[in-house]
Amino acid sequence: MVQLRPIALTLGLLLCVLAAAMLLPGAVAGADGSQDWPVFVASAAFTLFIGGLLVAVGYNKGPIRLGLREGFVLTTLSWVVVTSFAAVPFTGLGLTYADAFFEAMSGLTTTGATVLVGLDGLPRGILLWRALLHGIGGLGIVVMAILILPYLSIGGMQLFQMESSDRSEKVAPRAAGLMMAISGVYVGLIAFCTISYVALGMTFFDAVCHALATISTGGFSTHDASFGFFASPSLEMAGTLFMALGAFPFVVLIKAMHGDLPAVWRDAQVRGFVSFLAVISLLLGIWLALSRDLSLLTALRMVAFNVTSVVTTTGFASTDYNLWGPFAVSMFFLLTFVGGCTGSTAGGIKIYRLQMAGMLTRGYLLNLISPNRVVTLVFNGRRVPEDVPFSVIAFLAVYMATVGIVSVVLTAMDLDFVTALTSAATALGNVGPGLGEIVGPAGNFATLPAAAKWTLSFTMLLGRLELFTVLVLFRPEFWR
Amino acid sequence: MVQLRPIALTLGLLLCVLAAAMLLPGAVAGADGSQDWPVFVASAAFTLFIGGLLVAVGYNKGPIRLGLREGFVLTTLSWVVVTSFAAVPFTGLGLTYADAFFEAMSGLTTTGATVLVGLDGLPRGILLWRALLHGIGGLGIVVMAILILPYLSIGGMQLFQMESSDRSEKVAPRAAGLMMAISGVYVGLIAFCTISYVALGMTFFDAVCHALATISTGGFSTHDASFGFFASPSLEMAGTLFMALGAFPFVVLIKAMHGDLPAVWRDAQVRGFVSFLAVISLLLGIWLALSRDLSLLTALRMVAFNVTSVVTTTGFASTDYNLWGPFAVSMFFLLTFVGGCTGSTAGGIKIYRLQMAGMLTRGYLLNLISPNRVVTLVFNGRRVPEDVPFSVIAFLAVYMATVGIVSVVLTAMDLDFVTALTSAATALGNVGPGLGEIVGPAGNFATLPAAAKWTLSFTMLLGRLELFTVLVLFRPEFWR
Repeated sequence: MVQLRPIALTLGLLLCVLAAAMLLPGAVAGADGSQDWPVFVASAAFTLFIGGLLVAVGYNKGPIRLGLREGFVLTTLSWVVVTSFAAVPFTGLGLTYADAFFEAMSGLTTTGATVLVGLDGLPRGILLWRALLHGIGGLGIVVMAILILPYLSIGGMQLFQMESSDRSEKVAPRAAGLMMAISGVYVGLIAFCTISYVALGMTFFDAVCHALATISTGGFSTHDASFGFFASPSLEMAGTLFMALGAFPFVVLIKAMHGDLPAVWRDAQVRGFVSFLAVISLLLGIWLALSRDLSLLTALRMVAFNVTSVVTTTGFASTDYNLWGPFAVSMFFLLTFVGGCTGSTAGGIKIYRLQMAGMLTRGYLLNLISPNRVVTLVFNGRRVPEDVPFSVIAFLAVYMATVGIVSVVLTAMDLDFVTALTSAATALGNVGPGLGEIVGPAGNFATLPAAAKWTLSFTMLLGRLELFTVLVLFRPEFWR
Repeated sequence: MVQLRPIALTLGLLLCVLAAAMLLPGAVAGADGSQDWPVFVASAAFTLFIGGLLVAVGYNKGPIRLGLREGFVLTTLSWVVVTSFAAVPFTGLGLTYADAFFEAMSGLTTTGATVLVGLDGLPRGILLWRALLHGIGGLGIVVMAILILPYLSIGGMQLFQMESSDRSEKVAPRAAGLMMAISGVYVGLIAFCTISYVALGMTFFDAVCHALATISTGGFSTHDASFGFFASPSLEMAGTLFMALGAFPFVVLIKAMHGDLPAVWRDAQVRGFVSFLAVISLLLGIWLALSRDLSLLTALRMVAFNVTSVVTTTGFASTDYNLWGPFAVSMFFLLTFVGGCTGSTAGGIKIYRLQMAGMLTRGYLLNLISPNRVVTLVFNGRRVPEDVPFSVIAFLAVYMATVGIVSVVLTAMDLDFVTALTSAATALGNVGPGLGEIVGPAGNFATLPAAAKWTLSFTMLLGRLELFTVLVLFRPEFWR
């Protein structure tokens, strides 16, 4: 039986935090003399009321015990419930609830796909709300990826369980300490990013919003032209750097903050991630310089920004790479799948799964040649537990199958083939833009039918929670 | 060290058979008074000369011993070498060698993608040669899939090794007997198919060529309009039936021929395959009837033919389903991956791998819910060996990755995104047509650059030999 009280308590507390967050854009709207401040206040009151009710129902003096089942239910439910309430302020703009839910889900899952057009003319309150959703969602995902998912053994994430010696009886204080450290690094990075953006020419408001969207690898901008609006090479370079940092494993960043800088380069994921970005950017940069008659430095900067944006699953655009021709288009489509490091704010398949897949394929081929050879798998200096290889590869297979099935569902809603396929991939990878004229980097999701928006909202959730966390809930055995 | 003598001997014998086969279209060309008969005779002489040379080099009185390495080398090498010689007669039409090699590879791998335009006006000799390549390739693949690949443990095919009690010392006579039985069923099916086609209105020549292309699930036609040329509902229905039979596991068909008809429906693959075809055809048929205002029976017949054609990886077209709208297009794209049963002439991922993937995903989810539960896997009444699950899932992952990588390579040769993606998928699945205007069911591969044709020829080979058979050869460890 699934325990309902601790679930209600946790959801209630999350909603109270969300309600408090709503007051921030409300205050900005009020200060701006904008008409929409009551929307935020009313949304906050409504959310606080429901949140308080849930806390009252769930409150219990005894110790809280969360089992495996509660872990699965709570993880999925908290994203759905928080999104449902986070969507409310958007309805004040006159959006349908389907649109509002899509925008909120895109914000909280740090996807960055939008249904809003004319961002430049929107009141600052709503723009800040979008950025805050990225900020909240980004922190939520890092905490979840470090403290919860490894113990649910999702898609090979058991690889990132803390050493058994670390898991003494003091789990709760340790978890609290880790949560503080994660929040510290996260807020610190956002602050550092904001300062850099201001120094390089953004207004303070744009800098805050873009810093929240950068470190969370979300990608909501305050301008329809996204990062391209600023037309500033130095801002693009800073953006490239901070997007990459948002996709670093936060455990490694915490070590670095405590002075252990070499830990960063010792980490197998970081090495793979940085090398991958460098090689792909160099390759595409040289190709772009040759084919478009650009200087190599300009081409490298343009490519580095957009490649980093897609691989870190941020989804900012500095230019419409759809116009770079079919080679760039297919490369960016493939990059949509890659993703950042696990334990970061980035989505996608993730670097460690691709590294493991490479190692496993090599081992598999070696075993075909010499069936008796024992291939030992080592990742990041640790022996890989026995159940990890299958988990990782199963994740890849289910990931690809999901893209295929969602594509077919979307074409049944009359989206064209390329829009459907790339929307499915970009939503599952929590990237943001797809390809083609409609959902490409120069387009948005506004014109899609409501059914497609619900489908894509669900797909973003699936991707964000690493598929299996959600899929187990659909097994009848789960509820017995 | 890889033993070279038995490899040379086998290749030599294969080339001698190929040379003999070339005389058949030569004779037809001669009887027709066509100018191209000397091309076939010269090609045959050349092939026979090289084949004889190889036999002379490889001949050895002692017993032949083929180890694992020789198995891998021989499997890949025989397809490459036979294709290289089978291409020669096409150069007589004035094709470049890249085009001729593509056409021969497409024929022998029973893919059915073509670079020839104006089939209706071609001399009968060359049309028969294309059909014969399908016939030879189809038999080759069934023999390989039943007698060789299971012992190389490729992508979970160890599941289809004969019971250990069957593998006594008498391997050679048993293998010879099985080969005779396979050939008997294969030739019998082609004969039966030819008779049916003639009875339903095809000329004898068209019937032979299409029967060879049907049972081999190849798809080369003697008309540019493919099966649509005949505009005959009864021929379409016969074609649907025989394509499906070509994609049945031949071991099961042999049992049925020996009177054990219930064996067919007892087989897990057959049940999965037939149910899949039925469900998808019904679903798409109802949708087509509703959306195009057709009668349900007409819609079902059209859909059943084209779905069966793609799923069995035959690739005949009775109509251009590109025009059915994006839902049909994305469905057909997904169907390109499915494939028929293993141990048949069909390509693709194959039904048993999809069935295993479904079972494994279910088991994986159950284990996430209750980590201590032991999930026993049973396929076709037998316990699944321990190394099969990973093999199967790894095959899926490498399959998808190959489609992605080949797509990017093709766009680098300036193919558009949809043409590149669907060409890669159709070549790897040995289906035939892709999607879009260029390589879709109404198009062909003639206008592609030579580099793309070589890439696709290699991709067809990879798909036909279940990826890993070829990929092991690229590991340096293989050659040590």
